[in-house]
Amino acid sequence: MAREISPGSPVEDLATPAVLIDVAVLDRNIAAMGAAARAAGVRLRPHAKTHKLPEVGRRQLAAGASGLTLAKTSEAEVFADAGFDDLFLAYPVVGLGKPERLLALAGRVRIAVGVDSLDGARALAAPFAAAGRAVDVLLKIDTGSRRVGVRPEDAPALAVALAEVPGLAFRGLFTHAGHTYGAETAEAVRVAGEGEGAALARTAAQIRARGVDVAEVSVGSTPSARHAMRVEGVTECRPGNYVYHDATQVSLGTCGLEDCAMTVVATVVSVPERGRAVVDAGSKTLSTDPLRPHPGGHGFVLGRKSRLSRLSEEHGVIDVVEGESFRVGERVRILPNHACVVSNLHDEVIAVKDGRVAEVWRVAARGMVQ
Amino acid sequence: MAREISPGSPVEDLATPAVLIDVAVLDRNIAAMGAAARAAGVRLRPHAKTHKLPEVGRRQLAAGASGLTLAKTSEAEVFADAGFDDLFLAYPVVGLGKPERLLALAGRVRIAVGVDSLDGARALAAPFAAAGRAVDVLLKIDTGSRRVGVRPEDAPALAVALAEVPGLAFRGLFTHAGHTYGAETAEAVRVAGEGEGAALARTAAQIRARGVDVAEVSVGSTPSARHAMRVEGVTECRPGNYVYHDATQVSLGTCGLEDCAMTVVATVVSVPERGRAVVDAGSKTLSTDPLRPHPGGHGFVLGRKSRLSRLSEEHGVIDVVEGESFRVGERVRILPNHACVVSNLHDEVIAVKDGRVAEVWRVAARGMVQ
Repeated sequence: MAREISPGSPVEDLATPAVLIDVAVLDRNIAAMGAAARAAGVRLRPHAKTHKLPEVGRRQLAAGASGLTLAKTSEAEVFADAGFDDLFLAYPVVGLGKPERLLALAGRVRIAVGVDSLDGARALAAPFAAAGRAVDVLLKIDTGSRRVGVRPEDAPALAVALAEVPGLAFRGLFTHAGHTYGAETAEAVRVAGEGEGAALARTAAQIRARGVDVAEVSVGSTPSARHAMRVEGVTECRPGNYVYHDATQVSLGTCGLEDCAMTVVATVVSVPERGRAVVDAGSKTLSTDPLRPHPGGHGFVLGRKSRLSRLSEEHGVIDVVEGESFRVGERVRILPNHACVVSNLHDEVIAVKDGRVAEVWRVAARGMVQ
Repeated sequence: MAREISPGSPVEDLATPAVLIDVAVLDRNIAAMGAAARAAGVRLRPHAKTHKLPEVGRRQLAAGASGLTLAKTSEAEVFADAGFDDLFLAYPVVGLGKPERLLALAGRVRIAVGVDSLDGARALAAPFAAAGRAVDVLLKIDTGSRRVGVRPEDAPALAVALAEVPGLAFRGLFTHAGHTYGAETAEAVRVAGEGEGAALARTAAQIRARGVDVAEVSVGSTPSARHAMRVEGVTECRPGNYVYHDATQVSLGTCGLEDCAMTVVATVVSVPERGRAVVDAGSKTLSTDPLRPHPGGHGFVLGRKSRLSRLSEEHGVIDVVEGESFRVGERVRILPNHACVVSNLHDEVIAVKDGRVAEVWRVAARGMVQ
C-alpha cells in the first residue's frame, strides 16, 4: 500500500478512516479494572475479543490480570503463539477438529474451556481421554442473557454428570450477563450484576452439596463487572469492553466520553444538502451494530450533537442538527457504537499518545472466527 | 494456524464457520449479467466491493465486463497490483493523500473517479494539474438514495463548472439506486430502475445542451440493474452483489435461493432449550446488517424454516420453529443477509465445486477502507 505511518507523526497526518487507540485512556481503564478486582478480592481474566491484540493483553497482565479469556479456538492459538500461557475459552467449543486443536494447545499452555451440554462436553473430552489427559471445563450458566448456558436449576445434575466424563476436569461455573446491555438505568445494571453473581454463587453451593468441587465461579460483562465481582463466592471476573469502552457503554452509564480509548478518524467526503454530511467511514469501518440499550444511530461525532444516522458499506451519513455544519474535507472523530466489532474489521489500529502516533498495532487475532 | 484445507476435500471436512462460494452458481450469475448487458447494449463494470477478489474480477472480465468499479483508493491499489487496468472509483474521493495516490495509480492503469462537489473535485484535481495531467471524473447524481450526489436539477451547473477545473476531464454521470433496497414489490423495483436510468439520461441531455460532452451515463445496483440498463441513453451498468446474491436479494425478488453463490457453513454449539439453538457464526462472521426490504433476522438457515434471530459476536441464535429441531454438533448452511459485508470479514473464502473444495481464495481487498 502507498500509505506509511511514522511513529511520532501527528494524528492529523493519518489517512482516513483510521482506528485510533488513546494509550493514556487505555492504560487508565486497565488500571482501574485491575484495582476494582483487587479490591473485590477476585481474579481478573479480561476477554481479549475486544482488542484481539497481544500488546493490550500484555498490558492487562502487567496490571494484575491472571490470564485472558477468548471465545474461539483460533483466537487462543494466536494468543498462545504470542506467548500467553493461561487462557480460558468462554465458549461451548464444538465442531470438527476443534477438540484436537485444543488438545494440541493444552500441550503448551494452560487452557480451560466452556461447556453447556453433555454431548458437547463428551466430544470435547474424547481426544483428551484418548491421550490420557483431561481438559479443564467450566459449565456455562444462563443468568438471563438467553443465549447459551443451562438454567441455574439444571446445573447441579449436569455438573455431576460432567464430573464423571473421562477426559474432563470439572473446574467450576461461568456466566455472561449480556442482558445488562438492555438495562435502562444504572440501578438496573447494578441489580442485574448482583443477581448474576448471586445466582452463580448459589448454584456453586448446590453443586458442592452434591459432592462436586467448584473451584472457579466466574462472572462477566463490562456493565455488570463491578457489581458482580463483589458478590460473596465469586472468584473471577471477565469483562472485555472496558479497555476501550464505546458509545454503548456511555449510553449505559458505564463510563463517560473521557473514558473511551477507541475513536475513528474520518473525513467528510460530501455535503450534498443542508442537514446531511457524509464521511468515509461506513459499515466496513464501524459495523452496523446498533447502539444499546436503545437504538440511536451508528456512532457519536465527538464534539458535535450530530450523529451518524445510517451507514452503507463505505459511507456514513450524518444527520446534521440545527446550528451545526460540516464542510467537505473536514476531519471528524467518531465514537463507535461497539468497539469489539470495530477491532475485528481492521488489520491495524494506531496507538496514540499526546496526539501523535506511538505505535501501529497489527490486530493479530482479527478474523479468527473458527 | 492448525487448519489445513486441501483442494478436493469435501465441504463436510471444513472447520466452521467457513464462507463457501459455489463456483457453478457464481459463473452462472456472472454469465447472466454479462448477457443482459450485451442485450441492452451497455458496458458492464461490476462493483468488486462484493467479492474483493481478483479471482472473481477476472471471471467478470472474461464474461465481457469492460473494467471494474470500486469505492476506496486502497481497493483500487490492490486490484491494480493484481493486474486490473481499467478501474472506476464510484466514490467522491476526498481526504489527505488520496489525490496523490490516485495520481500514482493513474500512471499505471486507466482510472476514473466520482465527484459530487466543486471543493472535492478541486482538491482531487490539484496534483493532476500540477503534473500536467487530468483525471477522468464522473459526477454523482442522487436519483433517490439520499446518500451522496447532487440532485439532477443541480447537475448541469456543476458539470459546467467541473469542465473548467484544471486537472479534471469531465467524462459523465453516475448514480446508485440504493433506494431500490427499500422497494416493496418487483414492480416498485422496476419503476425505480427505469426512473434511475431516465433521470440520468435526461440530466445528460441537459448538460450536453450546455456544451459539455457526456460520454458515460452509468447506473448501478443489483435490484435495478436489468431495468435501468435498458433505458435509452444509458451507456454503462455497475451492479455488484449479483455475483453472489444473498437473503436480501431473495427477499427483494431479485433472485431465487438457487442463485445464491455464497453460504456460510456453521456448527450448532448449543441447544440450551426447546425453541433455541446456537451456532458458531455471529456478527464477526455474518455482520449485523439487517435483512431488507424488511427486517427479518440475521440469515436464513438453508433447508429449514427457522432463522437466525439475533447475533452476538461469536454466537448466532436460531429461533427454532415448531416441527424443527437441531442437535449439538450438527452442521448447517446459512444464507447471509448481505454478502458484501461478509466478504469483508474473512481472510479467505472457499471456492466449492460439486461439494468439494476447488480453491481457497484470499480476499485480497478485505479491510481496504481507506
